[in-house]
Amino acid sequence: MTTAHVRLGVIGAGNVGRAFVRLLNDQTRRVALVDAATATLEIVGVAVRDASRPRSGIDSSLLVEDPLALAAREDVDIVVELAGGIEPTRTWIETALRRGASVVTGNKALMAECGTALATLANDNRADLLYEASVAGAIPIIRALRTSLAGEKINRVLGIVNGTTNFILSQMTSEGWGYDEALDEAKRLGYAETDPTADVEAFDAAAKVQILSSLAIGTALHGEPISREGIRTVRSVDVEFARRAGYVIKLIGVVERVGESGISRRTHPALIPLEHPLAAVHGAMNAVFIEGDQSGPLMWLGQGAGGVPTATAVLGDVLHAARNRVAGRHDIPFTVDDRLVSVDAGDLSSVFYLSIDVRDEPGVLAQVAGVFGQHDVSIQSMEQSGFAHEARLAFLTHAARARDVTSTLRGLDQLAAVDSIGACIRVIDGGGA
Amino acid sequence: MTTAHVRLGVIGAGNVGRAFVRLLNDQTRRVALVDAATATLEIVGVAVRDASRPRSGIDSSLLVEDPLALAAREDVDIVVELAGGIEPTRTWIETALRRGASVVTGNKALMAECGTALATLANDNRADLLYEASVAGAIPIIRALRTSLAGEKINRVLGIVNGTTNFILSQMTSEGWGYDEALDEAKRLGYAETDPTADVEAFDAAAKVQILSSLAIGTALHGEPISREGIRTVRSVDVEFARRAGYVIKLIGVVERVGESGISRRTHPALIPLEHPLAAVHGAMNAVFIEGDQSGPLMWLGQGAGGVPTATAVLGDVLHAARNRVAGRHDIPFTVDDRLVSVDAGDLSSVFYLSIDVRDEPGVLAQVAGVFGQHDVSIQSMEQSGFAHEARLAFLTHAARARDVTSTLRGLDQLAAVDSIGACIRVIDGGGA
Repeated sequence: MTTAHVRLGVIGAGNVGRAFVRLLNDQTRRVALVDAATATLEIVGVAVRDASRPRSGIDSSLLVEDPLALAAREDVDIVVELAGGIEPTRTWIETALRRGASVVTGNKALMAECGTALATLANDNRADLLYEASVAGAIPIIRALRTSLAGEKINRVLGIVNGTTNFILSQMTSEGWGYDEALDEAKRLGYAETDPTADVEAFDAAAKVQILSSLAIGTALHGEPISREGIRTVRSVDVEFARRAGYVIKLIGVVERVGESGISRRTHPALIPLEHPLAAVHGAMNAVFIEGDQSGPLMWLGQGAGGVPTATAVLGDVLHAARNRVAGRHDIPFTVDDRLVSVDAGDLSSVFYLSIDVRDEPGVLAQVAGVFGQHDVSIQSMEQSGFAHEARLAFLTHAARARDVTSTLRGLDQLAAVDSIGACIRVIDGGGA
Repeated sequence: MTTAHVRLGVIGAGNVGRAFVRLLNDQTRRVALVDAATATLEIVGVAVRDASRPRSGIDSSLLVEDPLALAAREDVDIVVELAGGIEPTRTWIETALRRGASVVTGNKALMAECGTALATLANDNRADLLYEASVAGAIPIIRALRTSLAGEKINRVLGIVNGTTNFILSQMTSEGWGYDEALDEAKRLGYAETDPTADVEAFDAAAKVQILSSLAIGTALHGEPISREGIRTVRSVDVEFARRAGYVIKLIGVVERVGESGISRRTHPALIPLEHPLAAVHGAMNAVFIEGDQSGPLMWLGQGAGGVPTATAVLGDVLHAARNRVAGRHDIPFTVDDRLVSVDAGDLSSVFYLSIDVRDEPGVLAQVAGVFGQHDVSIQSMEQSGFAHEARLAFLTHAARARDVTSTLRGLDQLAAVDSIGACIRVIDGGGA
C-alpha cells in the first residue's frame, strides 16, 4: 500500500507558525507523524509579509507573499492559518474551504465572530475547519467536546482561558503585589502586551467563551455580546480578604445553562474556593472546568499560550485533517440549538463579595445593613478593619440576584457615611469536585 | 438522506451497564445522540446471568443469558462489554471482532493483559476496539492520547487513577486519620470493597498504568510486570511530615521515558509538591498529568469511578464507533515501539522521604549520617522529633538512586540504635506547572 501524501500551505510565520513548521519537519518524529496522519506531510508554501527576509527553520524557497494565492492553490490540501485578524483572513479561509481544502486555524477572534458560518461553509464543501489552538493553547478541549462529550449535556463551563490575567492575579496572590506591579512584571516577562487591554479587559477571554459556548452547548448567538468584566478593579486588599476567607480570585469565563433554554455567557473576576480544582491553576496556565449532567465535573489544564505549546494543538488538528482527507471524510459540525436565548447577567443569582469604605462613626453599620435589607440582599458574613476615622467593611452575601446587588451598591453609595465602593465580585460555588 | 441504524448488544447489567442503557434510552437526549452518532442507536440484547430477574430501566424482553451468542449475532454492530474478567470475556470479544463487529469495553484487566493482541484482531477485521472507560472513569484521556496528542512525544505520565486510595489518603490528610480509620470510612461510603486488596495494593492502578503506557508511549511489554507498591504502609505521621514540608501523599501511577529507549512503569505512594496540579485532586477524583515534549504539562481531571460517570465514557466510545461504522471506517491502532525496554525501578534516581525511629542517645545521628554517606545518599534536610528515650528522624534526601536508598535502609536497620524503619517514599518534582 502506498502512503498518501498531503500538502500544507501555512499562512503566517510568527511564533506559532515557526514552531509549527519546526514540529512538522522534526526528523526524529517523522515516523510517528506519518503514522498519526496516515500520510506523508509536506509544506508547499509559507505566506509572509516580506518573503525576502529569511525565517529560521523555514526553507526560503517556500516563502510567498500572497496568502490568497496560497489558499487558492489547487494542490494545497490543508491551509494552516496562523496570521490572525478578521479581514482579509476570512477571505483566505473562505477561498480554501470553497474549493474543498481543509482549514486549521488558531484565530479566536475570527472563530468567535463567524465560526458558525465558516463551519457551515466547510461542511457544504466536505472539508474540515479545525481550531483547537483558538481557545486554550495546548489543551485539547475542542476535540474532547466534539467527540468524547458529544453525547453529554453540559450544564456549565468555567474557564481560566487567559494566561496574562491569571499570571497577574497569581502574582497578586502569592507575592502580595498590587495590580500595577503585577502587570509590570507580566510585561517584563512577555506575558502581557505593551497595551494590555485585550487581556485585562477580558476581550480575549470573551472570544474564547463565545467559542466554548458554541461547542459545549450549541449556541450560535453571534450577534449578542458576552457580558464582560476585566481585572483592572481587583485590588490587593480584595485578594487578601479572599485568601483569609478561603478563596482565590481568578478571571473566569462562564457558559451556563439557566433553566430550560436560557444561557449565560460572561467573563468576570470571581472568588474560587481553595478546594476547587480551578484554584490550583497557577501562573500563565489555562484550564477548562466542565460540569456534565451525567459525567460530573471534568477539568483540562495546560499551557494557554506560547508558540511551541500552541503549535502542538495546530499539529494535532493537522494530523486529524490529514487522516480525514486520506479516508475521504470530514468532521460533521456541531448542531446549533436555535431555542437557546441569552439571559441577562443581572437576573442571575450568586454569592457576592462586596467591600466598602465608610466613616467609623456610631450607627454606620445599622445604616449599611438597612440598605442591604431594602434590596433583599442578605449578609452571610462581615469583616471590619479600621484605620483612624475610617473603616473598611467586607461582606459575603448569601445568594442574591446580581441586579439586587447592584441596587444595593447604588443605595450604599448615597449614604453620607460611605466614602467609596471598593469591590463587587461574584463567588463561585464548590463545583462538586 | 435516511439516517443509518446501528444495533448494540450489551454484556453485563451491573452499575455501569444499567447506567449506560439508561443514558442511551434517555428521550430528552435523543436528537443529540442521533446527531453525535450520525445514526439511530438500538439496544437489541442485554446479556445477564439470570434473565428471569427484572432489571430496572431495561426492557425484560431484551434480557438474554448467552453472552457468546449475543457477541456472535450477525445483526449486532457494536458489542458493549461491561462484564469484566479475563475469560470467558476475552472469547466473547474475539468472537465479535472476528466477524467485524466493533467492541466497546471498560475492562482494564483484560486490556492490560491482552490489549495489543485484541487491537490487532480488531484492525485485521476493520473493526474498532475502544476502551475509554477502562482507565479513569469519565475522563476522556484515551481519545486525547490517540487523536490530539498523536503527534506528540510524551516523556512522562503521572496518574491518580485509583479513587479508593486517593479517598483514603485525602481523608488521612484532611482529617488527620490513620490508614485503618480512613479505610473503614471508604468501605462505609462504598468507595472500597470488603476485600480492598486490588485497590490498596495497587493492582488496579498497575493495570491502568499498563494501558496508559501503551497509548502514551507505545509500549507492548505485556510480559513484564509493573513495579507495584501500595499504600498500606503509609502512616499518619508521614502524611503530617509531608504537609509540614509542603507536600501531600498520593498513590500515583508513573510511565516515564528513561534515556533513548528505556521505560519505567510503576505505581507507588509519592510526595507531591502542594503547588503541583495533582496535589489538588481530592477525594475519589482521578487525574492524569502528562509531560509532553513540546506541549508542556497537560492534566485531565474527573470522576474515576461510579456507574453513571463511567457510563458516559462508554457512551462516548459507542457514539464514536457508530460514526465510524456509518462512515465505513475504523480507528487505526497505535504503533508499538519494539525498541523500548523496561528499566528497573532500582536504577532510577529520585528525591526520597525516609523516616526511622532511633534511641535518643549521644552519637546516634553521626552513625546514621555515616550510613547515608557510605551509600552515596546525600541528605537535603532532617527533622527530629523526640519522645522520652526515642526519637523519630525524618529525612529528605537529594536525588539518589533507589537501589542506593534501599542499601542505606538495610545498613540503618543493622545499627543497634535504630529501632525501626518507618517510611521510604519517593518525592515527585515540581512538574513544570
